Amino acid sequence: MATSTGIQLTSRPNGWPDPSDFRTVRTELPALQAGEVRVANEFISVDPYMRGRMNDAKSYVPPFELGETMEGGAVGRVTESTSDELSAGDLVLHSFGWRDVAQGPAGKFRKVEPVEGLPSSVYLSALGMTGLTAYAGLTRIAGMQENDVVFVSGAAGAVGSTAGQMARLLGAKQVIGSAGSAEKVSLLTGKYGFTDAFNYKDAPVREQLPAAAPDGIDVYFDNVGGDHLEAAIDVFNTHGRAALCGAISQYNETEKSPGPDNMFQLVGKNLTLRGFIVRWHEDLQPEFVERMSGWLRSGDVVFEETVVDGIDNSVQAFLDMMAGANTGKMVVKI
Amino acid sequence: MATSTGIQLTSRPNGWPDPSDFRTVRTELPALQAGEVRVANEFISVDPYMRGRMNDAKSYVPPFELGETMEGGAVGRVTESTSDELSAGDLVLHSFGWRDVAQGPAGKFRKVEPVEGLPSSVYLSALGMTGLTAYAGLTRIAGMQENDVVFVSGAAGAVGSTAGQMARLLGAKQVIGSAGSAEKVSLLTGKYGFTDAFNYKDAPVREQLPAAAPDGIDVYFDNVGGDHLEAAIDVFNTHGRAALCGAISQYNETEKSPGPDNMFQLVGKNLTLRGFIVRWHEDLQPEFVERMSGWLRSGDVVFEETVVDGIDNSVQAFLDMMAGANTGKMVVKI
Repeated sequence: MATSTGIQLTSRPNGWPDPSDFRTVRTELPALQAGEVRVANEFISVDPYMRGRMNDAKSYVPPFELGETMEGGAVGRVTESTSDELSAGDLVLHSFGWRDVAQGPAGKFRKVEPVEGLPSSVYLSALGMTGLTAYAGLTRIAGMQENDVVFVSGAAGAVGSTAGQMARLLGAKQVIGSAGSAEKVSLLTGKYGFTDAFNYKDAPVREQLPAAAPDGIDVYFDNVGGDHLEAAIDVFNTHGRAALCGAISQYNETEKSPGPDNMFQLVGKNLTLRGFIVRWHEDLQPEFVERMSGWLRSGDVVFEETVVDGIDNSVQAFLDMMAGANTGKMVVKI
Repeated sequence: MATSTGIQLTSRPNGWPDPSDFRTVRTELPALQAGEVRVANEFISVDPYMRGRMNDAKSYVPPFELGETMEGGAVGRVTESTSDELSAGDLVLHSFGWRDVAQGPAGKFRKVEPVEGLPSSVYLSALGMTGLTAYAGLTRIAGMQENDVVFVSGAAGAVGSTAGQMARLLGAKQVIGSAGSAEKVSLLTGKYGFTDAFNYKDAPVREQLPAAAPDGIDVYFDNVGGDHLEAAIDVFNTHGRAALCGAISQYNETEKSPGPDNMFQLVGKNLTLRGFIVRWHEDLQPEFVERMSGWLRSGDVVFEETVVDGIDNSVQAFLDMMAGANTGKMVVKI
């Protein structure tokens, strides 16, 4: 009998999640029905947005059910198929993460081509939602133009580091990044090719950002919210545009926090703040995959993954990612 | 010798301006130089944005100079001309307000056609920047579509009442307005044809707006900021768009005030907050004048003016307007 080991949410966290909010459950899988596939996951994704699904609140994705295996991005190989669409051996991208073996209708699994020289986790990071989020945010949401000064917060993260590199390739005049350690700051100006970077723990962002951006900024790719957004509004040039992509600083807050104290500047400087989730911009996928594959092949875009081994360590991987222990995209290897 | 009586700023207000911050000065006008015109103003405009120009702060318009006559929108008749472009008797729109007689190069005055049956002040209100602000905010900034639910704050004001009527004419499913007195609320649902309206002094906006908007809102035309913006973010439907047009609640604040406590909703609901000043959207003027003239002629758009008589009362008119004593556009008749 085939089995699947998965992670279930057992209680809704109040503030920071605790390992005791989860349990690991091994279940038997029924035989495949017609048109179904069984998939051995190679990598599963742990992402900030999953924290939101742990609350029982109306949001853009429904909450995780208590006592059921959680979901999330995953990439794996088909091991068995009763469908004409997919065959054993196919690499597939799907949303049945947080488990080692997935099973369901073939239509819920999307076949992807292996990229030579790269692990299949690339479909959860650079070529997946992570990369598309960076691309959509920069090009469509913020409408980045050549010669813009671009500021990226949370810039050592998966989305942030990709956004910063893309901004450079799209002709930014200056790319500024913020991160939470000296090591990450070095990565930004080194490996990722940011023009300037600062550690937001060294001094208030409201002091460091103006110093790093003497010409102001035109585009802000926001992965943080809070003090970073406030500082960005201060230094925005006329017609500045912010793409608001999650706000990791707020995910674990149980009380509302005040917004930027300088919202009136939106009027006088013609600023635009635009929130987005990537799901509404999947029409950009073909254009994105074409450009991004080229950048990856040429080495113009590099990306880091923090790989944690084993489904049993996935809750800890999620908690570490929320605490900023990862560099680049955090994935769990199954 | 021709003279001009104008209002000067003598000290920069801290918080609410006081009449003692201004003085009335009568000056002699030099003879016209070649290419100049002299204009007898018929109406001058007092507007919220002028409060910003009384501060010595970097903004989208330069501060008023202490000891010089202030500027602002005005409409008048040419009385003397040494220019081929304009003749005595022409009606002109210009920015030399806060005075009874204006004088300068003809290029700084724009000839406009009198509209039969309407006072020339219409060029400071419905057919002027006020109307264009409403039109640009609704159509370009907020991208209003047919069947949108539209919320307008400060809706009994000049811009707000025009925006609400336009929203109806552009096919809104519901137009909701807020204002600061029972009398104004009656005007909104009566004369201006809003679907629903409430008095924001009766109860928190965060309670009244959800009750008025059971289907949520799609577009928010913001003339207020603060608690109104926060409440709008709460009830926005997915893909909601706010046009931020000044924030009268903040003009006289001397300390920064916290922004909305629910900014994280921008991400999950794909919301856009876009500030604007009308100066960047003057390319919409021809389209606007054509549509608006039609609406005014047919009576589909009505507008109110509060007319104060005499240049000597213009400071008080400005202060009253800031305190909300006007209904519709506040102008001073010279």
